[in-house]
Amino acid sequence: MTIKILTKSEVTASLQQQITSLYLQLSSTIDQLPLDHILANEDQIVFVCCMIDGQVVGVASMALYKVISGAKGMIEDVVVAKTHRGKGIGRKMMEVLLKEGEHRQLNEILLFTGHHRTAAIRLYQNLGFQLKKSGVYNLRFQH
Amino acid sequence: MTIKILTKSEVTASLQQQITSLYLQLSSTIDQLPLDHILANEDQIVFVCCMIDGQVVGVASMALYKVISGAKGMIEDVVVAKTHRGKGIGRKMMEVLLKEGEHRQLNEILLFTGHHRTAAIRLYQNLGFQLKKSGVYNLRFQH
Repeated sequence: MTIKILTKSEVTASLQQQITSLYLQLSSTIDQLPLDHILANEDQIVFVCCMIDGQVVGVASMALYKVISGAKGMIEDVVVAKTHRGKGIGRKMMEVLLKEGEHRQLNEILLFTGHHRTAAIRLYQNLGFQLKKSGVYNLRFQH
Repeated sequence: MTIKILTKSEVTASLQQQITSLYLQLSSTIDQLPLDHILANEDQIVFVCCMIDGQVVGVASMALYKVISGAKGMIEDVVVAKTHRGKGIGRKMMEVLLKEGEHRQLNEILLFTGHHRTAAIRLYQNLGFQLKKSGVYNLRFQH
């Protein structure tokens, strides 16, 4: 098992296709942005993937941004292949993101997850995340 | 009343000082990042401020990022001076952010706000935001 931070130059058509397929396990309704687009500026994202025998079995990303209240990381799109769950892959990918967040001197890392995702919530709390007394609101655009 | 999107070149020592003071009304415990730092790349943030008689009475920002699940805007640090609340300044600043988000072809705008902030929640819902069935988790670093 190899867990690494992906850079734009490492993206191949095969890797893109594998990640597109993997991501479908998280959502089949969302239009995915291509990797070369989201990795264009490495100051803005940390994208981690987990490979086993040359196959992508997990991805996790953290978008980086700066506002008055600090330099922050927003963790998004954490997916582990259904066939490889229960092996600690999610935890290992998260640990890479957290370490990178510390290295980049972020003030805070944020994430949100469905109230029903109890296994994920246990993992996040175990890693030190705390539930904020806040609600998440969103507004989607149709283009 | 003037509401405008602030660019880095418009930041003066006086403006920085006014915004620092205003922001203290939202939080006195957070170390603020300076404006020239957060406005360094205009592809990454939309920073709106409201001026009355040359004084800053409100700010609101939206960090922009791209992940597999889309091009997103995260609204942060919305503050209206205590002396100028109830005049629709928050709504007007939010409308500028939403319009800019649409213009920049974001797929989604996100925000989170404390469950107790009922006036803010009413405003956000009125603007079309919907509560997600998710919890917000955070982890803060001490550097």
